[in-house]
Amino acid sequence: MIFPSPDPDHLGTMLAALRARRPLVHCLTNQVAANLTANALLCVGASPLMAEADDEVAVLSPDVLLINLGMQTPARMRAARIAVAAARRQGIPWVLDPVAAGALPSRTTLALELATSRPAVIKGNASEIIALAGGQGGRGTDATVPTLEAQASAEALARHTGAVIAITGPEDIVTDGQRTTIVRHGHPMMAQISGLGCVAGALIAACLTVETDAVLAAANALALLGWTAERAAVQAGGPGSLQVGLLDELSRIGSEPSALHDVR
Amino acid sequence: MIFPSPDPDHLGTMLAALRARRPLVHCLTNQVAANLTANALLCVGASPLMAEADDEVAVLSPDVLLINLGMQTPARMRAARIAVAAARRQGIPWVLDPVAAGALPSRTTLALELATSRPAVIKGNASEIIALAGGQGGRGTDATVPTLEAQASAEALARHTGAVIAITGPEDIVTDGQRTTIVRHGHPMMAQISGLGCVAGALIAACLTVETDAVLAAANALALLGWTAERAAVQAGGPGSLQVGLLDELSRIGSEPSALHDVR
Amino acid sequence: MIFPSPDPDHLGTMLAALRARRPLVHCLTNQVAANLTANALLCVGASPLMAEADDEVAVLSPDVLLINLGMQTPARMRAARIAVAAARRQGIPWVLDPVAAGALPSRTTLALELATSRPAVIKGNASEIIALAGGQGGRGTDATVPTLEAQASAEALARHTGAVIAITGPEDIVTDGQRTTIVRHGHPMMAQISGLGCVAGALIAACLTVETDAVLAAANALALLGWTAERAAVQAGGPGSLQVGLLDELSRIGSEPSALHDVR
Repeated sequence: MIFPSPDPDHLGTMLAALRARRPLVHCLTNQVAANLTANALLCVGASPLMAEADDEVAVLSPDVLLINLGMQTPARMRAARIAVAAARRQGIPWVLDPVAAGALPSRTTLALELATSRPAVIKGNASEIIALAGGQGGRGTDATVPTLEAQASAEALARHTGAVIAITGPEDIVTDGQRTTIVRHGHPMMAQISGLGCVAGALIAACLTVETDAVLAAANALALLGWTAERAAVQAGGPGSLQVGLLDELSRIGSEPSALHDVR
Repeated sequence: MIFPSPDPDHLGTMLAALRARRPLVHCLTNQVAANLTANALLCVGASPLMAEADDEVAVLSPDVLLINLGMQTPARMRAARIAVAAARRQGIPWVLDPVAAGALPSRTTLALELATSRPAVIKGNASEIIALAGGQGGRGTDATVPTLEAQASAEALARHTGAVIAITGPEDIVTDGQRTTIVRHGHPMMAQISGLGCVAGALIAACLTVETDAVLAAANALALLGWTAERAAVQAGGPGSLQVGLLDELSRIGSEPSALHDVR
Repeated sequence: MIFPSPDPDHLGTMLAALRARRPLVHCLTNQVAANLTANALLCVGASPLMAEADDEVAVLSPDVLLINLGMQTPARMRAARIAVAAARRQGIPWVLDPVAAGALPSRTTLALELATSRPAVIKGNASEIIALAGGQGGRGTDATVPTLEAQASAEALARHTGAVIAITGPEDIVTDGQRTTIVRHGHPMMAQISGLGCVAGALIAACLTVETDAVLAAANALALLGWTAERAAVQAGGPGSLQVGLLDELSRIGSEPSALHDVR
C-alpha cells in the first residue's frame, strides 16, 4: 500500500505544535554535521543539546534522542549505548542514523545492535538501509544505489525491528512495513551539502515529539526539508547559498503558513 | 549603580587596538561552536587557536584563554583544568563560559570549581548564572528565565568570585558587583544561531587583551556583537543569512568607523 | 627553475576527471575545518569520509588520504599513524597538513615523523614549512613570515622528504625541489576564513586522484581555490559571504568551463 504524501495543512499544524513545545532534542552526532544540525533544529523551534559524556547522557531526560553514527570512536559508541538505554528506561523515543553502515565493519555491527534496540525511526541512505537488511553495503558515506532499489529492504527491516524506516535520496521512502509513503521533494544540490542527511534525522526526531505516528512524523520531516530546499534553491547560486537559504526557509516556514501551499 | 552603556568611540578605539595587536586567543570550546567562534575572532582581527591536548595546553602562552564547557568529556575537563592552571601561572587573563551549568550536574560541579579559579569574566545565560550563584538551573543549553531576573545573582556571583559577570540574552548585563551596565543591542533571530553565545565569550576574551577594565571589555564585546547583528539583520532573510552577514559586519566594523555611529 | 603557472585548460580537464571519478577522500582533520572541508570536497565532485576510529582507519581503502594535524589528541595522533601505515601498505597517496608545527612542540615532533613517511604532498603555511625544514617556527596557526621567505626551506624539505611541498599564503609556492611554481591567485579576505588552509590540503588530495604529477595536482588545486575565491569576492560583502560564495563557485567552475578563462 502506498500511503498518501505529506499534506501541507498537517505539516503546518505539526510545525506550530513544535514551536509551541520547544522540545529538547538530545543529539549524539558527528562533528561535521553538528553545527548545521543544531541550527536546523533551532530554526524549526526545537532546542538542541549535544552532550556526549557518559555521565551526562546517562542522566538526561530530553524529549527525544538522536543517535547518528558518523565519526565513531570507542567513547562515542559507549555513550550511544548509554544514551539509548537511558531513553528506553524513560520511554523517550529515539532515532537511529546508521552513517556508513555497510561501508565500515564496526559501524555495521553497532548499527545492527542499535537497530534492534527499539528505535522509533531508522533513517539512512539506500546503501545503509540495504546493509542493515542484510544486503551488500556501499563505500564511504554516500549511497551507491538508487533509493527505490532499497524499498523492499526497508520494508523488511521495518518488520524485523519494529522501527519506521526512512530512506533519504532523490526520492525519500518512509515505511513501517505495512504503510509506505514516498516523498518527492528536494533539489539535486542537496547532495552537495555535507551533513544534510544528518539534519534529516534530527528533524525526524524533533517531529516525533509532536506526532506519535512515526510514519507521519518522518514523512513530514522529510517533506519539510525537501520543500524548504526547493524554496531556497530558487535564489541559491550553489550549495553554499542553498545551505544558508535552507536555514532561512526553515525558520520562516512555520511562521508564514501560506508558504506551505506554494510548493504543493 | 547603573554604569553607562558602551560608547561607539571607545569601541572603535578598542577595535583598532585589537586589529593592531592581533592577539592569540586560545579557545577550549565545543565542536558545535568552534568554527563560528574561529571565524568571528578572525573577523575582528584576533588569531584563534583551538588546541585541546593536555601537553599542548600546558605549554601555550596565548594572550588570553577561553574555557567554554559545551560538550564536555573527561579529556576536555582535564585539559580545561590544565589550561586554567597554566594561564594563572603566567598571569594570562581567562574567560569562563559555563555552558549548561545547572542543567547537567557534572557541568555545574566543574563550572563552580572553575568559577573560583579567578576567571577575569564569567559569561553565561540567565539560567547558568543563577545556577552558579546557587539558584535553580535550567534545562539544556537555552535560558529558561529572563535576563533581568538574573541580575541580583550576577552581582552576588561577581562579589563571591572576583570575576566580572556577563549575562547574555535579549538584554545583556555586565557587572563586577559594584558597577552594572546593561547592553540593549541585538536581534531576536540571534537566538536561532547555534553557538552565538559561545562567540560572545570569545569576543569578550579578545577584548580583554586590549582593555584591562573587564567590565568595559565585556560590555564592549557584547555591544559589538549586538550592533553587528542589528546591522546584518537589515539584509538577512533568516538566521542562516544573519550568521553570514554577522561575520561580514564584524570584519567591516573596525575598518569603517562611521558604522559605529549609525547604530547608536 | 620556475615552472609555468597553472593552465585553465589543464585545470578544466582535471576537474572533469574529478567529477567523473568521484574519488573517496579520507580526511583525518580538525573539528574547526571539518565541515567546510567536506563541503568543498562535495562541491568539486569528491566524496569525503571523516572516519577517525583506529579500527576504521586501519581497514579503509580510500582513493587518497589527508592527514591534517589541527586539534591533535593522543587518539588522533594514533589514528593518523595507523591511517598513514594503511595508505602506504596499499599504495594510496596521502597529503600531510602540519598545522601549528613549529608553534607547538608535540605537533612539530609528529609532523617531522610523518613528513618522512612518504607523503605525496606536504602543504603548510610559511612558518610551518620553515619549522619542518629545521628553522624557527611561528606562533599559533597563522604564518608569521611572508610566503616567499620560505621558498628555500620548501625546496630543501622537498629534497629531504621526497614530497612535493606546497606553501599557502598571499602567493602559493609549489615545489618538488627541482621544479618550483608560484600561484598568484586569491584574495586577502581568505585569511579571515577559518580552515581555508585546511580546505587547500583537501583539494590537493582530491586532485592527486586524477593527476599523478603531484606538482601539477597541488598547483592546480591551489589555483582552483584562489580563482574561485577571486570570483566569489566580486559579490562578497565580507568573509562570511566569501565563504558561501566560494562553495557556490567551486560547484560551478567545472560545469561552466568558460569560467576558467575569465580569471586568467
